[in-house]
Parts: sequence; C-alpha cells; structure tokens
Amino acid sequence: MNYSIGIDIGGTNTEFGLVDEKGTIIQREKLKTKDFSTTDDYLKALTAKIELLADSVREENLILGVGIGAPNGNYYHGTIEYAPNLPFKGIVNLKNNLEVLLLKDGYNLKVTVTNDANAAAIGEMIYGNAKDIKDFIMITLGTGVGSGIVVDGKLVYGHTGFAGEVGHSIIDINGRQCNCGRRGCVERYASATGIVITVKEMLQNFDKPSVLRDLDFDSITSKDIYDAAVKGDCIALDCFDYTAKMLAVGIANACEITSPQKVFLFGGLSKAGNYLLTPLSKYLNEYLYSTFQNTITIELSDLKETDAALLGAAALCF
Amino acid sequence: MNYSIGIDIGGTNTEFGLVDEKGTIIQREKLKTKDFSTTDDYLKALTAKIELLADSVREENLILGVGIGAPNGNYYHGTIEYAPNLPFKGIVNLKNNLEVLLLKDGYNLKVTVTNDANAAAIGEMIYGNAKDIKDFIMITLGTGVGSGIVVDGKLVYGHTGFAGEVGHSIIDINGRQCNCGRRGCVERYASATGIVITVKEMLQNFDKPSVLRDLDFDSITSKDIYDAAVKGDCIALDCFDYTAKMLAVGIANACEITSPQKVFLFGGLSKAGNYLLTPLSKYLNEYLYSTFQNTITIELSDLKETDAALLGAAALCF
Repeated sequence: MNYSIGIDIGGTNTEFGLVDEKGTIIQREKLKTKDFSTTDDYLKALTAKIELLADSVREENLILGVGIGAPNGNYYHGTIEYAPNLPFKGIVNLKNNLEVLLLKDGYNLKVTVTNDANAAAIGEMIYGNAKDIKDFIMITLGTGVGSGIVVDGKLVYGHTGFAGEVGHSIIDINGRQCNCGRRGCVERYASATGIVITVKEMLQNFDKPSVLRDLDFDSITSKDIYDAAVKGDCIALDCFDYTAKMLAVGIANACEITSPQKVFLFGGLSKAGNYLLTPLSKYLNEYLYSTFQNTITIELSDLKETDAALLGAAALCF
Repeated sequence: MNYSIGIDIGGTNTEFGLVDEKGTIIQREKLKTKDFSTTDDYLKALTAKIELLADSVREENLILGVGIGAPNGNYYHGTIEYAPNLPFKGIVNLKNNLEVLLLKDGYNLKVTVTNDANAAAIGEMIYGNAKDIKDFIMITLGTGVGSGIVVDGKLVYGHTGFAGEVGHSIIDINGRQCNCGRRGCVERYASATGIVITVKEMLQNFDKPSVLRDLDFDSITSKDIYDAAVKGDCIALDCFDYTAKMLAVGIANACEITSPQKVFLFGGLSKAGNYLLTPLSKYLNEYLYSTFQNTITIELSDLKETDAALLGAAALCF
C-alpha cells in the first residue's frame, strides 16, 4: 500500500492526514494556523507534523509525497500568493521551503500545492460523488466563495494556475461593493459574509416580524439565519431565497463556459441544505441559457467538510 | 498531401473550402443559406457541393473528411440544434444525414460538426496567432456574441457539447431584456445589435451633438457608429467605450473561470479595431479579479473573417 500526506491549510486550522491510496485517513494531526505570526515558525511547525506522520510508515518507504490545499495556493509555482485570510502576507514559497526543510532532516518528499477549492474538487472526483463524472464544478461556500472546475476529467488550472474564481465573477455591475475593489461579485451575496449583509438589509428595509430582530444586530451570523429559517422565519427564508438567486446567476455563468454535468456545493453555508438547495436548483434552471436548462444537477458534496480538501490534497500525490 | 473539406454555415452564406494540411484553401464554393426553405433541399445542395470539391482530388483518395462549423452546432451529436439565425428550425441531424447522402453517391466521408465560434477557435489555434498558446478564449462579435474556449490545448465541449456561451452570461441581473428571455446578457451590449441599442439610448438620453442625429434613427447600423467614431463623434466614441466596458465584464468573468493567456476578438464588430480594443484592454484589467490582472492580453484575430471558421472546420478532420 502507498501513502501520501494531505494538508488542508485554512485561516483557523491546518489539518494533516496520513492517507492511503483507498482514501482512508490513517492518522490525523492539527495546528492552529492563527497561532503563527511568522512564516518561518509556521513552516517549521508544518515540517515537524509532516515528519511525525511520515515516521509512522517510514520503514515502508512508501510515502509518495505531500499534497497541500491552501487559499490562493498555486499549483504551478508551489506558492500561496496574497491569501487575504491567512496570517502570512505576500508570496509564500511553500513547496520550495518545505522540501528544503524536509530534506535537511533526511526526508526526501515532493511537495505539491493547490488551491483549497481545487483540492476539494479533486477529493470529490477521487473519493466522492464525482467519481464517474468528467465535467463538474465544485463550489465552496464559506467566508468567501471558492470553486474548482473540472473539464474532461482534469482540473482546470489555466495559464496562471489560478483558474476557477466563480466567487469573484461579476453578476451585477452596479451591485454591492466587494472587498476586492469591484462591485457585484458573487461572493458578496452567496458567502457566509454575504448572507449576513443580505439579512441586515432586509431587516432594515422591511417591516416583517422576525425572530432575528431579537438578536444583537451587529452580531447576527449565518448560523442565526439558518436557525431562524428552521423556525419558519419569513425574513430568514427570503434571505436564503435571495442568496440562492444570486448564487444561481454566478453558477449559471460558469456553467455556460464549461457545461458541467453536475455542480457540487461544499462548505459552511451549504449546511443550510434544502433552505439553499431548493431555491438554488429552481433559480439555476431559470438563469441558465436555454441550451443548458435541465442538463445540470446541483447537489451537496457527500464528503465530510474537514476531509474533502485533505483527501484531495493527498490525492495530488497519487 | 492530405485534404479535408471545411464548411462554414452562416445565416446568410454557406462557405466551402477544399483545404490542405498546411491550411491552404485550394478551391472555394458558396451557397446562399437563405435560399433554402427546407432542410432536405439544403442537405442535397450541401451534398452536391461537397462531392464537387471531393472530385477535384478524388483520384488521390486523400480526403480525410468533412468538417462543419455552424451556429448551435453540436460536436457530440453532429447536429444543429435550435439555431435562431438559420432557416432550419428544431434539431437538424447534419452529420447522419450528410453521411448517408454522400455514401449513396459513393463518397465514404466522415462528417464532423461543431459550433461556428469553436471552429474559429480551432482555426486560430492551428493556423492563427494561438499556435503556441494552450489557454485562450476566442470571442466572435457579430449579430450575437459567440465564443470558443481552449483549455490546456483542447477545445472545451463540456457535458452537452455546448460549452462556451460567454455571450449569454449575465453581467447585470437588472439589465437589458435579452431575446433569450433573461436580463443583462453580454450579447445584449457587445454585439452589432447591442451597440445599436446603446447608441440609440445615448442619442435619446443626452443632448450632445452627433453626426448620427442626421441619420434615420430606426436605420442606424453598427457601421454608422464606426464611421461616426472615425470622425471623432462624441456619442459614437462614448458608445464604443460603454460597449467595451460591458464586454470587458463578460470576458473578465470567463477569464476568471479558465485563466487564459490571450483573448482573441473576431467578427464584424471587431473590425472597429482600436475604437473597441483600446477601451476594452483598459476595462478588462479593471474588471479582472486582482490575481488575473496583467496576465491576459487581448488582441484581434489575425485570420480573415471568411476563412477562420472554414479553416477551423476543415482542421476538425486532420
């Protein structure tokens, strides 16, 4: 049996897994990403954890490499570049630095880096519901909106290695101001951040009663909106409907470029399940150009949230 | 030397070319698409022209096949499906019907069909400026807006065979009503049709003097707008600026999906040259997500308009 080490770098945690070829996570490790203020300290801690996992099977010498999924991870350069939600600023030469540190300790391991949403797409393709699907899009709905695009069985990296930014496609040129400096990006509506903006607008602009009015306005979270929706709260349900509509336009635009068979949703906001999925499926068909209507199904990823990117990252080495 | 027969089916004309492997068009033929009111008559006329071209090299028996680029052409099915600008309604089984008709006459030729914008992209890839480029997007600006997407050296067909509809991606969810039933499609702004709508809005909404006010309002064409721009007409120049801006948003969205190295413009409206290209390059960089800024160049296709789709179609057989 061959093994690889998968790493999922997030803004809060860094998750490690020693993974076998069948996709079983044999052993796990974890670091708090936010505990590290310098890149050097973080790289050293990453190295120590990798070596710890490698030691479990070292005598077999069957570890094929280290795969890493990270926000703004670049497959071609092996870097993390200007990731807004990580403590490490600028360009981090993850691949080169880790390979050197590992080799210094006698571990000759190849490191491969990709974007976290791409890693989740690879996870879905190898271990999830996209096993027999050649054309699909993975949408990750977290603090932001990420995506991994698979065309003809291959992940799309494009010329820069950064292909697949559905979250920053513009669906309303006069819409909400986005952190990226432009207006009307999908992410500004369809992320955990976006849905909170929407609900606050709705609470301010409409008189409808809502259990959300009992909460501290400035502290409302996407989880609060979900809880309110479960209670049948009108504002919360309208809010999911609007979020689904805006996300549908973004997904429809992406689908018109690559014509996928399926779209998978993944990440925090996707846990809203049918509160999001039911209106999303309806709106997707409505906003798709006629040629694509009824050719695409949208479903929730079957992979555990903590595992998809980790397994996908590990699979980069297989 | 091997040969193939390339066919470019347009709403007005159907162009035929006997093409050698080097991309030289040895012999040309033409039909008026609009002269045919029934699919059967059209198929018979197509068959006759194909046989005429095949006869020129028949003794060599080196014709590899027939490649066809057509609006709404489907590579997988060999069909033209619900093409709005062709006289043939519904689904036309182009590949099957032509192969049967040709075989009946003793010509055993394989027929391959694709979308006209895809054919132009293949033409650019094999005979044009995309020769050494693995990731690019071809945008055809005619009555509508078409596109062909190339990822890692391969044309993207997707699950349905209809991938690459940049023209019907939505950039303003509250924007102009499109013929497709939705609002704010790129095509409604950035086609020959769209630019005329824009100039009429500008003439009605602004008081600026314009040579276009001397023309019959209902008969203004995109060519009139170009001619006015050449004379330095403010409304015409503003109109190109706005068209470029809306097209830039649509192209930026597509670029964020596949991260191309280059975008090529092709078709009637692209003849406006720098009146369109200069503001387009500026706006593209402005509307691209930061990761993609300065990674993409946009240029005019180098291929003759009548030849790109024809050569690309012929190249389907090589």
